[in-house]
Amino acid sequence: MTTLSPAGLSPTERTTVRRGRNRAVTDRDALHDLLADGLVAHLGVVVGDHPVVLPSAYAVDLDGPDDGGTLYVHGSVAARWLTTATDTTVCVTVTELDGLVLARSGFHHSMNYRSAVVIGRARLVVDDAERVRALDAIVDHLAPGRSATLRPATRKELAATAVLAVPLREASMKARAGGPVDEEADVAAGGWAGHVPVRRVLDPAVTAPDAVGPVPAHVVDRVATPPAPQQPADAPA
Amino acid sequence: MTTLSPAGLSPTERTTVRRGRNRAVTDRDALHDLLADGLVAHLGVVVGDHPVVLPSAYAVDLDGPDDGGTLYVHGSVAARWLTTATDTTVCVTVTELDGLVLARSGFHHSMNYRSAVVIGRARLVVDDAERVRALDAIVDHLAPGRSATLRPATRKELAATAVLAVPLREASMKARAGGPVDEEADVAAGGWAGHVPVRRVLDPAVTAPDAVGPVPAHVVDRVATPPAPQQPADAPA
Repeated sequence: MTTLSPAGLSPTERTTVRRGRNRAVTDRDALHDLLADGLVAHLGVVVGDHPVVLPSAYAVDLDGPDDGGTLYVHGSVAARWLTTATDTTVCVTVTELDGLVLARSGFHHSMNYRSAVVIGRARLVVDDAERVRALDAIVDHLAPGRSATLRPATRKELAATAVLAVPLREASMKARAGGPVDEEADVAAGGWAGHVPVRRVLDPAVTAPDAVGPVPAHVVDRVATPPAPQQPADAPA
Repeated sequence: MTTLSPAGLSPTERTTVRRGRNRAVTDRDALHDLLADGLVAHLGVVVGDHPVVLPSAYAVDLDGPDDGGTLYVHGSVAARWLTTATDTTVCVTVTELDGLVLARSGFHHSMNYRSAVVIGRARLVVDDAERVRALDAIVDHLAPGRSATLRPATRKELAATAVLAVPLREASMKARAGGPVDEEADVAAGGWAGHVPVRRVLDPAVTAPDAVGPVPAHVVDRVATPPAPQQPADAPA
């Protein structure tokens, strides 16, 4: 396979999109946008002879120490998946669902989505400064600006938390947008087809009963600016 | 580990929730509800020496031929992941994000979510009747009632499509709901904490430019009944 320039994604033998090539996205900015929009990563780890896939919060530091930038996940130091993953090749997948594609045949049903697959060696972060930066980034990924409003982590909290870093170098991205693509005969036969846009909504924050208000600006801003509905490029006006 | 009765989930050595036990859900109905609510599964397959995690549409047949019911995914017969997965142990994870938990310390930040992890041997479905039933179920999972309104799949379409079945027997589920749980000292220090509910919204269907209306009732119904926002059990009134 052609290796793209550093400005593009770098598909390798492991991340090259083999099926549905028309849906492959080779734009590093699109990858970064998706990773910024997403909230949940699915981390795949090999445990013994089988894979385990676990949902996880995450954050990305494009200026991180790894080639292509660094994706961070964290967990309890006692979590088995984390110990198992360390120094092995893992897969981190972030998917955002943008719509249901309802075609005239079952065969052409699909989903609109953006999905990034990152494969890389998981490095246990041992440098304290990088660890604190990563944990702050994970908090700020939930609510940008929040980490600066919190007290620093205690030694005990840091000792209980492990952070894994995965390089963003080997990444592939796929996306689909717009309406169904049907067989001509099915279109000619008439009948309805279309797509149902799907989006994520963040509702106004619920203040904890033991907390004093008001809701801080960085939380209000978070709710006020949910990811915009994905406007398919080829959607009818 | 204790094996639960058939009415409950059946955690095994592979699916037992080891961390955050207070978040383990041992209710088979809750698992089925989550699998009904979810739209995207993340399928983990071991390829060579590393895991690959891919997003996929899916459907569940609780009366399927496998122990505990059957989860189906499908793909092109030419898809490498599908060939690789066949007759190996795979992991299928379905996660729904319900909220962001913004605590007073970085350490206690979390997410509200429901997540099911299913581990099982992937069986290539060869029986034609089961294959058609599975493909219809995947369409109906997107829009209940839709498959009955479509023409049957052609021989060519069926020949191009592979269906994998994973037994639901080995499954674990975790869930978190409600506001943050903070350290007493942090609560005493004052400051805001709370949670931001997150939900998925299905917008009104966009009719394809080459289609004739009106939007069928089963699609209108789909949009009119998005999954209700998850009401955390311990949310303040």
